[in-house]
Amino acid sequence: MRPAIVLLSGGLDSATVAAIARRDGFVVHAISFRYGQRHMAELAAAARVARHLGVASHRIIDLDLRAMGGSALTDDIDVPKGRSPHEMSEVIPITYVPARNTIFLAYALGFAEVSDAKDIFLGVNAVDYSGYPDCRPEFVSAFEQLANLATKAGVEGSRFTIHAPLLNLSKADIIQLGRSLGVDYGLTSSCYDPAPSGEACGRCDSCQLRLQGFEENKIADPIRYAA
Amino acid sequence: MRPAIVLLSGGLDSATVAAIARRDGFVVHAISFRYGQRHMAELAAAARVARHLGVASHRIIDLDLRAMGGSALTDDIDVPKGRSPHEMSEVIPITYVPARNTIFLAYALGFAEVSDAKDIFLGVNAVDYSGYPDCRPEFVSAFEQLANLATKAGVEGSRFTIHAPLLNLSKADIIQLGRSLGVDYGLTSSCYDPAPSGEACGRCDSCQLRLQGFEENKIADPIRYAA
Repeated sequence: MRPAIVLLSGGLDSATVAAIARRDGFVVHAISFRYGQRHMAELAAAARVARHLGVASHRIIDLDLRAMGGSALTDDIDVPKGRSPHEMSEVIPITYVPARNTIFLAYALGFAEVSDAKDIFLGVNAVDYSGYPDCRPEFVSAFEQLANLATKAGVEGSRFTIHAPLLNLSKADIIQLGRSLGVDYGLTSSCYDPAPSGEACGRCDSCQLRLQGFEENKIADPIRYAA
Repeated sequence: MRPAIVLLSGGLDSATVAAIARRDGFVVHAISFRYGQRHMAELAAAARVARHLGVASHRIIDLDLRAMGGSALTDDIDVPKGRSPHEMSEVIPITYVPARNTIFLAYALGFAEVSDAKDIFLGVNAVDYSGYPDCRPEFVSAFEQLANLATKAGVEGSRFTIHAPLLNLSKADIIQLGRSLGVDYGLTSSCYDPAPSGEACGRCDSCQLRLQGFEENKIADPIRYAA
């Protein structure tokens, strides 16, 4: 059983990715980040998902991305609501956090190196999040190349693999795959702007994409939405 | 005057790099990391150097690399002393911190993006630190490539440049260059294992390389060493 590092945000995508890593025979070491996001609902969800999937370990890393600023996910900027699919795809959204996936993967690489893991899984998706530069296949390949130059393990001849198994799947495909692997999506949290009670807003880009994915599967999303 | 992000550790190399960035006409925004290193002498040195060079800003970022483990610089592992140049070059030293430069550059990239800076400077050196995988020219190029794929600015057509002006200089060359730019090396700290009073040990790899660099220039190192 080989170890793998899985970036687990608590959302639908990363829960599915963790289940895929488990299916593929990896011992899953999950890592999540407390990065100054405006709400903690996603970290609570990450902990629920980690328990549900029976991961070998789950670390929460403190990162101060708020000091960096420049995003509606960390700053006091309004999260856009009710955007059309066309609007979502045409510009890089204000919910983009500068260099976030680069920083997350850099940490994952450090943990992989000290854990003798050669595999890192992340739930980026090029279809739904085409507006995020660090969710594209060329970003993932460039990071894999960097990983093999940046590390002792890489220099000594091991190869790191960055797995992004959702890269070309639609949200509906991801949900279908996750359900076949036994993922309980009722434990996940995707909303960019949940109510203090934890209920999802239903109107931010992330909620809209999620709801549409369930709708295309003709099943109800098990999480609660604000009325 | 274009802004640049400079990784400033408080050591001899990064002080020189900050002076080079200033010479090249950049407005210097320095960043340092409190990353669980065993001693704080280098952060105090970074603050002195930042003041001395009159940088536009100096941010200290908290990072928990100690949670990651695996290095004599963050863990309770003895720093090697009195190694010969041959021993220094033949294996990756225990003072290597997993993925450290990848994490530092990832942060620098985020700050560059929010500051509209297209230039990042770091003091890696392939001659003296050939044992560190993330101090090699191919690592720097791979990160530059990643930076242009990872970011909104990169996607929108700006190009990031990762400057590593010391890459092929010897320690003696670096000292000579820095002195010509007015760097006061008495403010810097290079030791991996300084005394509580701040005095350098004189025997770790970093002290030895530094002392040799001053010796080759036939000048005295202005910092204090333990007797």
